[in-house]
Amino acid sequence: MHHPEAATRRSVAQSAAKILARLRVRRPRIHCITNSVAQNFTANALLAAGCVPSMTVSVEEVGSFVSGAQGLLVNLGTFDKERRQAMGIAVDTARSNALPWALDPVFVDRAPTRAAFARELIAQRPTVIRLNHAEFSTLAGSKPSPDAVADYARACQTVVGLSGESDLVSDGERTASIANGHSLMGRVTAMGCAGSALGVACLAIEPDAFVATAAALLILNIAGELAAEKSTGPGSFATSIIDALYNLDGPTLIERAKVS
Amino acid sequence: MHHPEAATRRSVAQSAAKILARLRVRRPRIHCITNSVAQNFTANALLAAGCVPSMTVSVEEVGSFVSGAQGLLVNLGTFDKERRQAMGIAVDTARSNALPWALDPVFVDRAPTRAAFARELIAQRPTVIRLNHAEFSTLAGSKPSPDAVADYARACQTVVGLSGESDLVSDGERTASIANGHSLMGRVTAMGCAGSALGVACLAIEPDAFVATAAALLILNIAGELAAEKSTGPGSFATSIIDALYNLDGPTLIERAKVS
Amino acid sequence: MHHPEAATRRSVAQSAAKILARLRVRRPRIHCITNSVAQNFTANALLAAGCVPSMTVSVEEVGSFVSGAQGLLVNLGTFDKERRQAMGIAVDTARSNALPWALDPVFVDRAPTRAAFARELIAQRPTVIRLNHAEFSTLAGSKPSPDAVADYARACQTVVGLSGESDLVSDGERTASIANGHSLMGRVTAMGCAGSALGVACLAIEPDAFVATAAALLILNIAGELAAEKSTGPGSFATSIIDALYNLDGPTLIERAKVS
Repeated sequence: MHHPEAATRRSVAQSAAKILARLRVRRPRIHCITNSVAQNFTANALLAAGCVPSMTVSVEEVGSFVSGAQGLLVNLGTFDKERRQAMGIAVDTARSNALPWALDPVFVDRAPTRAAFARELIAQRPTVIRLNHAEFSTLAGSKPSPDAVADYARACQTVVGLSGESDLVSDGERTASIANGHSLMGRVTAMGCAGSALGVACLAIEPDAFVATAAALLILNIAGELAAEKSTGPGSFATSIIDALYNLDGPTLIERAKVS
Repeated sequence: MHHPEAATRRSVAQSAAKILARLRVRRPRIHCITNSVAQNFTANALLAAGCVPSMTVSVEEVGSFVSGAQGLLVNLGTFDKERRQAMGIAVDTARSNALPWALDPVFVDRAPTRAAFARELIAQRPTVIRLNHAEFSTLAGSKPSPDAVADYARACQTVVGLSGESDLVSDGERTASIANGHSLMGRVTAMGCAGSALGVACLAIEPDAFVATAAALLILNIAGELAAEKSTGPGSFATSIIDALYNLDGPTLIERAKVS
Repeated sequence: MHHPEAATRRSVAQSAAKILARLRVRRPRIHCITNSVAQNFTANALLAAGCVPSMTVSVEEVGSFVSGAQGLLVNLGTFDKERRQAMGIAVDTARSNALPWALDPVFVDRAPTRAAFARELIAQRPTVIRLNHAEFSTLAGSKPSPDAVADYARACQTVVGLSGESDLVSDGERTASIANGHSLMGRVTAMGCAGSALGVACLAIEPDAFVATAAALLILNIAGELAAEKSTGPGSFATSIIDALYNLDGPTLIERAKVS
């Protein structure tokens, strides 16, 4: 008897273990255009996982930085003029260089101008879109569910990574659900942004964007579980999850993974 | 015999306990236009207290964000052009929507242009002004004292929250002094900014701005005392105060409050 | 027999101990134009060491802030338009007021426009240039070595502080090598930026820029060693190094110093 689900589960966890090991050897450069609230935590999460982050938003130089990187994150938070211009140049550069790039459409549910700008970026076919329930509902026009996520991934010709109580990942054909994580992750600013950045890090290693995205969310969620065991609130949790990302190993990932 | 002072003391501590409980249930959205040094710590302090922070400064969308929020913080630190424009739109939106808003006139003692801009904002009648001794002296033109603070509150038709060894709060009629807190609070950047943000959070729950401001300062100061017991310096203190805000309960507030 | 090397070693460690003690008494104001990734950590490092940081980049007011400060840091990270304009004004103000200022030419190896802008700033004779190996190679056109660093310091008529496995400091005449530090320092964003800021803090106390720069790097590196003993990864390390800076004392500096 064939068990495709069990195969997916094993393969995501094993892929995550391999990707994590390779991240630490290859140390990919990840360029992040991300909001100023998230920059420090995102940079530290990437460094803990083995990457080399850069974050300039200067229109004169962002092209050079993206050309020299192995992946790009575009995050809409704190959405000022130069940052939007920089996003255009960065995305063009990523596309010309065939670099993977992820879009994190932060807070598109809060302002129509922001949702409109996100739609323009989505039309440029990001490798991955990583977002939460409110953001998904705004962009997809439907409530999040495994089918809705798969439909939206197909419609946008991308991989969708949806954060929630369980995370969902779909490329339109394959869908995975990740039940790992901890409620304190919702009490630390930039946790989702850091997840998107780790997604880009995994894309820099693993060409299958579905596998890379599922691996990144699995890595962050299991780091969150480990951090929660050593924390007494969201302050110590934010510190501990960086330590956990740094210390995480493949066997722990495989042992704790709840992927279906 | 009547003891108005004792009544104030009890009522501030008990109000703070109620506000804290309600913050965690209602989870108000607080929009902060704050300096980039303070954004991350402020967001984490608000999240720890139960709020949902947002921080965009884009002129195209700040109006939408403030319209969807329950309170606004305007903080002058790192005072670039788009941020000042955004402040104008944000304050107009708060006023039109009858939302409470607080001004934190950071470093007005350092540059005359900054003091002038703060005075323009004060003319628009913020619900609360939260500031330190040097900032008060610059704006009020007098040394801080309970009488000077009450006079300035009356002159500006606002509530003044003055941080110092003891904090003072006045609406011009009532004045409270809060003797809680810890010296390490002065060794962590953005501690005052986070206090102002918590002030807005309390204003989103409690319509009496004097009570809300006193409650916010009491909550932060007692969290500071609890954090200091678990810290070995300002680094661990900054982490512990976020944990303390998250774990703080009403009985602890009432037991530790030193309000007169 | 004369031992100039041993004399240098003792004198750097003893000077660092004196500077540290004076920092905590004088509490100099340090203005930092630094990237938004580094602002929070840099401000907390300066506060832990006893300084009073400010970070505005507004062109209207940065002159007032620098005039009221005892030192200036110019860091090129996240290099937007207003920030570059602010740098020009800030450097002019520092020069007019004979204030010490340091340049941290972050990531000049990544974009030619950035290297060109750094060269313009270097032509204005910063008191100190603090940089890493890749940045040095780009600007100096040669691989880092004690001789290359001394040559570059002479050519630029400045003091060079080079971070690496061992740090090198040279004013063209004197060269010191500092073997203290810990590998986790490379896994926390803004560690180099904080080192540059501490360099300015020491310049505000000690007029000999060679001694001040060596002292700052020694202080940060020994704080890093102490922090590593209490850390389980880069998250807790980032917190512990702030505590270590706050608690560091002269005898520990002198005992642990590895200067040659």
